[in-house]
Amino acid sequence: MNDLIAPGGTVGILGGGQLGRMLAIAAAQLGLKTHVYAPEAASPAADVAAAFTRGDWHDQAALEGFAHSVDVVTFEFENVPVETVAIIEPIKPVRPGSQVLAVAQDRVDEKTFLNRIGAPTAPFAAVDDAGSLAAALAKIGTPAILKTRRMGYDGKGQARITAPEGAGDALGEMQGQPAILEGFVPFTREISVIAARGLKGAIAAYDPGENVHEDGILRRTTVPTTSRADVLADAHAIAARILDALDYVGIIGVELFETDDGTLLVNEIAPRVHNTGHWTIEAAATNQFTQHIKAICGWPLGAATRHSDAVMTNLIGEDAHNWALLSAENRTAVHLYGKAEARAGRKMGHVTRLSPIRS
Amino acid sequence: MNDLIAPGGTVGILGGGQLGRMLAIAAAQLGLKTHVYAPEAASPAADVAAAFTRGDWHDQAALEGFAHSVDVVTFEFENVPVETVAIIEPIKPVRPGSQVLAVAQDRVDEKTFLNRIGAPTAPFAAVDDAGSLAAALAKIGTPAILKTRRMGYDGKGQARITAPEGAGDALGEMQGQPAILEGFVPFTREISVIAARGLKGAIAAYDPGENVHEDGILRRTTVPTTSRADVLADAHAIAARILDALDYVGIIGVELFETDDGTLLVNEIAPRVHNTGHWTIEAAATNQFTQHIKAICGWPLGAATRHSDAVMTNLIGEDAHNWALLSAENRTAVHLYGKAEARAGRKMGHVTRLSPIRS
Repeated sequence: MNDLIAPGGTVGILGGGQLGRMLAIAAAQLGLKTHVYAPEAASPAADVAAAFTRGDWHDQAALEGFAHSVDVVTFEFENVPVETVAIIEPIKPVRPGSQVLAVAQDRVDEKTFLNRIGAPTAPFAAVDDAGSLAAALAKIGTPAILKTRRMGYDGKGQARITAPEGAGDALGEMQGQPAILEGFVPFTREISVIAARGLKGAIAAYDPGENVHEDGILRRTTVPTTSRADVLADAHAIAARILDALDYVGIIGVELFETDDGTLLVNEIAPRVHNTGHWTIEAAATNQFTQHIKAICGWPLGAATRHSDAVMTNLIGEDAHNWALLSAENRTAVHLYGKAEARAGRKMGHVTRLSPIRS
Repeated sequence: MNDLIAPGGTVGILGGGQLGRMLAIAAAQLGLKTHVYAPEAASPAADVAAAFTRGDWHDQAALEGFAHSVDVVTFEFENVPVETVAIIEPIKPVRPGSQVLAVAQDRVDEKTFLNRIGAPTAPFAAVDDAGSLAAALAKIGTPAILKTRRMGYDGKGQARITAPEGAGDALGEMQGQPAILEGFVPFTREISVIAARGLKGAIAAYDPGENVHEDGILRRTTVPTTSRADVLADAHAIAARILDALDYVGIIGVELFETDDGTLLVNEIAPRVHNTGHWTIEAAATNQFTQHIKAICGWPLGAATRHSDAVMTNLIGEDAHNWALLSAENRTAVHLYGKAEARAGRKMGHVTRLSPIRS
């Protein structure tokens, strides 16, 4: 196996969505080819990749062929099955690796890991049935949130429990899947740290962004946040601890709740480039996609310096129909992901609005 | 024909080199698909395009098929034959159009056009044989430069005449092709204006860059230039006059010589995105590739504001072997074009080094 992937080499990307698309573009700018592997026929990433394989996550022959055609593999989506990665890893390096996926795919394992390395989270307990839910509610109290342990994103697979009587309905929404009960955190704001770790352990973290969600979906990220400087330093320290503990290579997104007194609790980690880091395309010296490609190819990391203030707003569903108006705005960069159908709740693109750094 | 190309539409690109590659990336970021048409099998642009047709510039059937598959066509290279564009124009809009190519492909026609609209150039005369060369030398004097009228780039097809005795050798270097004799301009610096004109005539011009060539190939562009403000205003005015006179749509590159007293003479115009505008990728609110795509798709132009100072340096031939060192530099963006072989004189990539705007 070759640790360093030189220009002319090929980066394999598992997953064909907009994150894969933006990774493929970043790789091309560094003189690398890309090969996208995804189960769907319509792939935003395939349009900008040198090669595309449509294949199931469990198609061993297709995955082996893919692995032999590339020099390194990464993923744009943390729910790639661990077994998929296990087929590829003996053939080519996967960065970040399967040890990261295993932790990030299960909310109980993730929070257990975080607490073990001293990264605080909301109180939580595993829930498998009515009995364990009752015990968890007794320990954690209400309000609380019941979530499936696996495969949740954009607010799907979640039910809020405001009083113990709601336990049955919430458990029903889990549809028999293993769940986690999380205590409700009365936070002042949600911030996120996008950070990279290189192959030899160097870390480069971006200024944290402040996030606003609507209907469980990220609406807006603003940099800088209004957090105190010591809170931001804490956020960077937590991200670095996570990266080191996982022997991580690439970009990670760490979502944090900040409470009134400046305490930070990790909400979740996303072992990939992250929606709350899209502002880096226009406002940072090295954007998160370029940084991820550099990291997984063993290149030196770029500077994470921010040269402008920025507000990134997702274009969800029919928001994308406003592309012409948005495109006419001054200092607004419009990004569209090439998805054919503007379904409700679907991330169709984003805009980043720049302004000079506040002094 | 549809003037406005909405997201989901397809941009056809004639030419498969690095400019086509960067155009395809810009189009993808705006939610557009791209289809590249080029004669060469190995195309840096094809690696990031949704479709690629390998075809000759004179293959009518292939060009018609290409035209029917796209919504608008542009070119990354000004020596696309006018006949090629004439096959496409009845089927789909070509922007900028064939009237622009006709002017830009012939140095005599170009300089005649420029002088007609009041854009000064060095003195020049058409040269077809020894007799017309002698007459031209008598009028213009030495030193002077003899160039082929057509198909020159990166200093190819040029011969300097330092004294009348050198005329025969210089004419021999033209290999029987129609030529132009240009008077030598004792310039202080070469600057270039990258400017865009939208479908309805709006113009957005970037801050001019100052260019240094080595062996006839662009080595470095620096923004801002050290020119006086009134000279820069003149440069913008000349570019605007050219754009309006050609009813131009898209990005143009205008190379100018600046003399000691601040007089500007147009050296040449390039009817396409331009090497001296690559700094806009990192240092401008809208980069030249995005701007070109917006213009040819009928979108509002973006802001041409510059947020950083920048020095863009081409990586020529084996320069590209330094990618790892360059990648480790702080605030340096490395771009590599995915070309397999680092031949001498070949543009393999570029780096842009940013610094805060000098106040």
